Amino acid sequence: MSHYILKVDCSDKAGLIYHLSEVIYQHGMNIEKNSEFVDKEYDRFFFRAVISGDVDLEKLRFDLTSMLPEDANIALGARRKKNLVLMATKESHCLGDILIRYHSGELDANILAVISNHDSLRDLTSKFDIPYFYVSAENLEREDHEDKVKALLHEFNPDIIVLAKYMRILTPSFVKPFAGKIINIHHSFLPAFIGANPYKQAFQRGVKIIGATAHYVNDDLDEGPIIAQDVVGVTHEYGWRDMQKAGRNVEKIVLSKAIDLALDDRLFVYKNKTVIF
Amino acid sequence: MSHYILKVDCSDKAGLIYHLSEVIYQHGMNIEKNSEFVDKEYDRFFFRAVISGDVDLEKLRFDLTSMLPEDANIALGARRKKNLVLMATKESHCLGDILIRYHSGELDANILAVISNHDSLRDLTSKFDIPYFYVSAENLEREDHEDKVKALLHEFNPDIIVLAKYMRILTPSFVKPFAGKIINIHHSFLPAFIGANPYKQAFQRGVKIIGATAHYVNDDLDEGPIIAQDVVGVTHEYGWRDMQKAGRNVEKIVLSKAIDLALDDRLFVYKNKTVIF
Amino acid sequence: MSHYILKVDCSDKAGLIYHLSEVIYQHGMNIEKNSEFVDKEYDRFFFRAVISGDVDLEKLRFDLTSMLPEDANIALGARRKKNLVLMATKESHCLGDILIRYHSGELDANILAVISNHDSLRDLTSKFDIPYFYVSAENLEREDHEDKVKALLHEFNPDIIVLAKYMRILTPSFVKPFAGKIINIHHSFLPAFIGANPYKQAFQRGVKIIGATAHYVNDDLDEGPIIAQDVVGVTHEYGWRDMQKAGRNVEKIVLSKAIDLALDDRLFVYKNKTVIF
Amino acid sequence: MSHYILKVDCSDKAGLIYHLSEVIYQHGMNIEKNSEFVDKEYDRFFFRAVISGDVDLEKLRFDLTSMLPEDANIALGARRKKNLVLMATKESHCLGDILIRYHSGELDANILAVISNHDSLRDLTSKFDIPYFYVSAENLEREDHEDKVKALLHEFNPDIIVLAKYMRILTPSFVKPFAGKIINIHHSFLPAFIGANPYKQAFQRGVKIIGATAHYVNDDLDEGPIIAQDVVGVTHEYGWRDMQKAGRNVEKIVLSKAIDLALDDRLFVYKNKTVIF
Repeated sequence: MSHYILKVDCSDKAGLIYHLSEVIYQHGMNIEKNSEFVDKEYDRFFFRAVISGDVDLEKLRFDLTSMLPEDANIALGARRKKNLVLMATKESHCLGDILIRYHSGELDANILAVISNHDSLRDLTSKFDIPYFYVSAENLEREDHEDKVKALLHEFNPDIIVLAKYMRILTPSFVKPFAGKIINIHHSFLPAFIGANPYKQAFQRGVKIIGATAHYVNDDLDEGPIIAQDVVGVTHEYGWRDMQKAGRNVEKIVLSKAIDLALDDRLFVYKNKTVIF
Repeated sequence: MSHYILKVDCSDKAGLIYHLSEVIYQHGMNIEKNSEFVDKEYDRFFFRAVISGDVDLEKLRFDLTSMLPEDANIALGARRKKNLVLMATKESHCLGDILIRYHSGELDANILAVISNHDSLRDLTSKFDIPYFYVSAENLEREDHEDKVKALLHEFNPDIIVLAKYMRILTPSFVKPFAGKIINIHHSFLPAFIGANPYKQAFQRGVKIIGATAHYVNDDLDEGPIIAQDVVGVTHEYGWRDMQKAGRNVEKIVLSKAIDLALDDRLFVYKNKTVIF
Repeated sequence: MSHYILKVDCSDKAGLIYHLSEVIYQHGMNIEKNSEFVDKEYDRFFFRAVISGDVDLEKLRFDLTSMLPEDANIALGARRKKNLVLMATKESHCLGDILIRYHSGELDANILAVISNHDSLRDLTSKFDIPYFYVSAENLEREDHEDKVKALLHEFNPDIIVLAKYMRILTPSFVKPFAGKIINIHHSFLPAFIGANPYKQAFQRGVKIIGATAHYVNDDLDEGPIIAQDVVGVTHEYGWRDMQKAGRNVEKIVLSKAIDLALDDRLFVYKNKTVIF
Repeated sequence: MSHYILKVDCSDKAGLIYHLSEVIYQHGMNIEKNSEFVDKEYDRFFFRAVISGDVDLEKLRFDLTSMLPEDANIALGARRKKNLVLMATKESHCLGDILIRYHSGELDANILAVISNHDSLRDLTSKFDIPYFYVSAENLEREDHEDKVKALLHEFNPDIIVLAKYMRILTPSFVKPFAGKIINIHHSFLPAFIGANPYKQAFQRGVKIIGATAHYVNDDLDEGPIIAQDVVGVTHEYGWRDMQKAGRNVEKIVLSKAIDLALDDRLFVYKNKTVIF
């Protein structure tokens, strides 16, 4: 029996759950699991259901569209393995964690390629038989470099692009065509320490806890919708490199958590925030 | 406009959410918030909704009963402030935390009384103008002591009985009439260190993390359904009294969390586990 | 047998531990516990020891001064119960937590007074037989209000001033005479969300974790040396008031931790950071 | 300039720090970092120092031995890269994490070999050019299988043996010659859920937090000295496989932490507990 994921968000009104479950029921589908949330501030309704059964997807989509408010976003499709492209620079801890989880089958996705602005991670990537594309930024205008990367991304057409410690700033024109598809790991507990060298900033400020943040990338650097965050305690004995080392574990865990949520279609973005079911 | 809380658990079958939301909709009620969960292992469906509107409660309850499977438990009632009786022995940290939250209005409940087998906490309790009942166990058989406490509890007839470090074992015959109403805080990360002196046990074992567990009390000491747990790190520098001190903060936070969940009717108990919405 | 606490910080050089322990040994004192740390960035040595025995304090201080570098800060004194003055505004969770711990004897300190710019917490404070001073800021210039508070503080001459949710900004001229004595609890995970309404800021930003920070107060609002921090997870279901409620538990725990460290003379401040033994 | 690590534990007496630092000073060595702890319950003194300089190790060891109590354990040696042998069965998350950290240079050790009772992890191991020894237990008495493994271990003579999810019980006679050298990761928050299938046990008990424990292996299964522990929250939505998946992240982090501590000679074992500097 096939499984489908239905995601809806629309302006709130009375009876939405009733009407949604009615349509699903009338199509003979079973709701395996569903979650709802109403954002009272914005009067916005969010709904996600895993449904099973034999279905005429087009008909179901049509009936849902007819019933829901005009401003509704409806995503409906068979549960399937997603395609990823990973981007990284020199640090291997996040990339490595993803590759190991891919190798063991724990990561429920296909990895199509790794793209990097350095050649350092080719060896690691090759061990897992994944194509590695070294796109040097040397002697290139930012725009020209991004065009080359963009061309590769368009070729692979992934569902999700993971910035696994890709240490170059992306321009809005790069990000735009992949809106809602790029997940970044930021090595700080956003919004603290935005910008460069967050561990040095944290060390300088004398904080007692450091963290990491996985977020969708939008036009504003470090300002995209936050997906997951976690922290780890530090003491005065930690120099900034010790903080960096301690932070690596948090980074890889947080990034993996965000990727898993995206792969399972559990994320909604609205008003620069995420709703997570 | 009035708010009601509806809790249902029953054997799972197709269409339950549809039929539940239909009945609610037909009564002209609005679903403010709802949550569902299906325990696949036991094929059990759990549902909680906050609904608002003008309603004929008897009629709604009747319609729900008619529609739901025979084994359904249905709880439906106006959202209201619950009545608590607290029981404690000598330690003040949990009792004090509850009293402070009561005083500030943060604890959404009435505290009817504090019952203790010692007189030590009378002074603290009196500060908050709450009746204090000292029921000494001296020279009494366990059963006779419990009868005296039970008489008080029956008199006050609370919605929830909170064992805020009540350090006497309760017999099954005491617990029985208050099934599903007694919440205890256990000073360990259950099921580790059941029994007496868990901090000494933890110290002896050389653990690096200690914890606390809030749970419903049933016949089996320390074996009731777990509501909330939390932990705190310790090191070799902690003697057992240091662990105890560190644990107190966790105990009071965990107990308060469990009480808040119970006050808001967010807890289901099934097969010695809790489902929490 | 008496216990003393010795705290030293000075520029680092070889043999400091040897020479320190030699002087202590020659005075017939026993080192019960000691800790050292060298800040390599600033070449600064930090040392704290709990020592016991019968001692000529003046002589010991003289010998230490003779032996240590000229830039050494030496604090040496009998371990003793410290005097606190608490300052608060309207929220009771931090004040209440301190008062309960004071009542139970867990807080190893004398509380001399509570000073507030509102009268709201008088009732709570009075329950614990602690003088309450309501210093209204109405119709007063900031400076005049601060003068009144300052007069009270000078009268009580506390070892530590705890801002237990005192919601007024303190000017540098107020802070100056109490340098290194004022501990504040900030309701965010500094340096994130400095300034007003951090929970609203956190809600707006859509963070998944919120926190609290206890720090020494210096001239720069929210920029003083951090003593302790902790966090708690939140979800999209949390409005800013829910975040605030969740944050209260963290605030009181973090503040209590910082107070305990200060009461036990475990804190050093250097270059706007703390070293904690 | 060379760095050495000195570890001492002995019965406590007055002046130990003074005399230790005196001997070190007289040898012209500089103390880069030192830590002490006295276990008051057992009157045991623990000391670890990183010292630098040119030294006659034999002479220093002799002088230390002469000065210290007879029951002293003294470990003194140049700071050096340690040799590891890893043992695993089928699960790759811990092994993979170690290999990635090895590849990036973050793990400060040589990995000499991976030994397994299955062939499943050969592919992963080979990617990192590390010899893989498949020692099948099929048709072998437990003792005979252990003899084969033991022979390999004696051949490689590693400083530390890491059980990275090695799912066979080791007999006391196997463990004995490697006392204090074998680190295991146990997939529960010990001492909860000792024995088989801890995630199933945890699921059955309905806990709200699961954890992992890294510990030295001794004669008693799951009873060795605990090195590191950590936890992660779970809900009623987690089946036991979800708990297992969530637990994997904790397991790899906790094991890596324990390995790093051992590689840096920061661990003492005494009375079945660890002291960690």
